Amino acid sequence: MTTTSETKKLNTDIYEIRRIKASDYEDVTKTLTVLTTVGVVTKEKFHKLLNYWDSVKLPDRPDERMFNPLVIVNKKTGKVVATGMLLIEPKIIHECGFVGHIEDIAVASSEQGKNLGYHLIRSLVETGKRSGCYKIILDCDAKNIGFYEKSDFSKAGIEMQIRF
Amino acid sequence: MTTTSETKKLNTDIYEIRRIKASDYEDVTKTLTVLTTVGVVTKEKFHKLLNYWDSVKLPDRPDERMFNPLVIVNKKTGKVVATGMLLIEPKIIHECGFVGHIEDIAVASSEQGKNLGYHLIRSLVETGKRSGCYKIILDCDAKNIGFYEKSDFSKAGIEMQIRF
Repeated sequence: MTTTSETKKLNTDIYEIRRIKASDYEDVTKTLTVLTTVGVVTKEKFHKLLNYWDSVKLPDRPDERMFNPLVIVNKKTGKVVATGMLLIEPKIIHECGFVGHIEDIAVASSEQGKNLGYHLIRSLVETGKRSGCYKIILDCDAKNIGFYEKSDFSKAGIEMQIRF
Repeated sequence: MTTTSETKKLNTDIYEIRRIKASDYEDVTKTLTVLTTVGVVTKEKFHKLLNYWDSVKLPDRPDERMFNPLVIVNKKTGKVVATGMLLIEPKIIHECGFVGHIEDIAVASSEQGKNLGYHLIRSLVETGKRSGCYKIILDCDAKNIGFYEKSDFSKAGIEMQIRF
């Protein structure tokens, strides 16, 4: 960890980081609109997806999950103000190693500029490290490279996409 | 589909594309060494991982799988000569949409220059399309951008990584 990271501590009097839960429905779907189109996601669909995410365990690790969706809650308001996912992929390569994929990082507009994105990334990275990932990857816009470099990430390749 | 794609048909007298199976152990672990370190992967670990990949279904789609590992077999020799994975990730965004992740594409050195990588990518893309993915993404070296553009992919972002 760099000195920069050590000096930026999350203010735990105000904020809490935890796994997503069913009652986060409204806050999470709203927070994600900062990132992209959410569209029609009913409370029922949201709950079903959370149950699914909870149900998929890692191979040989019945206590650890493939889907690790975290949120940051503002304890004063009780609202979720940031959300992000760590998906853990079990591969053949690297001795049947795990690779973590960080996905769908969103911070509510009202709470931007408070390093919450940084703390969320650190928590997702720690989760992946604990589960034994040999690396964690994510895709970002070129303009966000500097932000991820501050979280000890480095450039690895180019993201390509095909849309239907 | 572009004209380029239509003119490049897989020679099905020689090659077959199918899901990975337990008896592919030696060929697949060998083929993957073209891509990166495989390390010690015993037959038992390989079979356990395949069973795991088979067991994880998509939400509300008991007949469709999250892990879609394909191989190309040379029917004359009976050997696997290429392998690649499509991991399907169920998200909240885009109306609880699915995103496909293409991972670990490897073609045996002896079979390179025969468009097998192209055909493997097309099969993985078709699998994702059938399962209802709204997009499919992959990460590659900058030198392979042209190859993926021929398969109708376009540049989307930068891959960042952290290694432990």
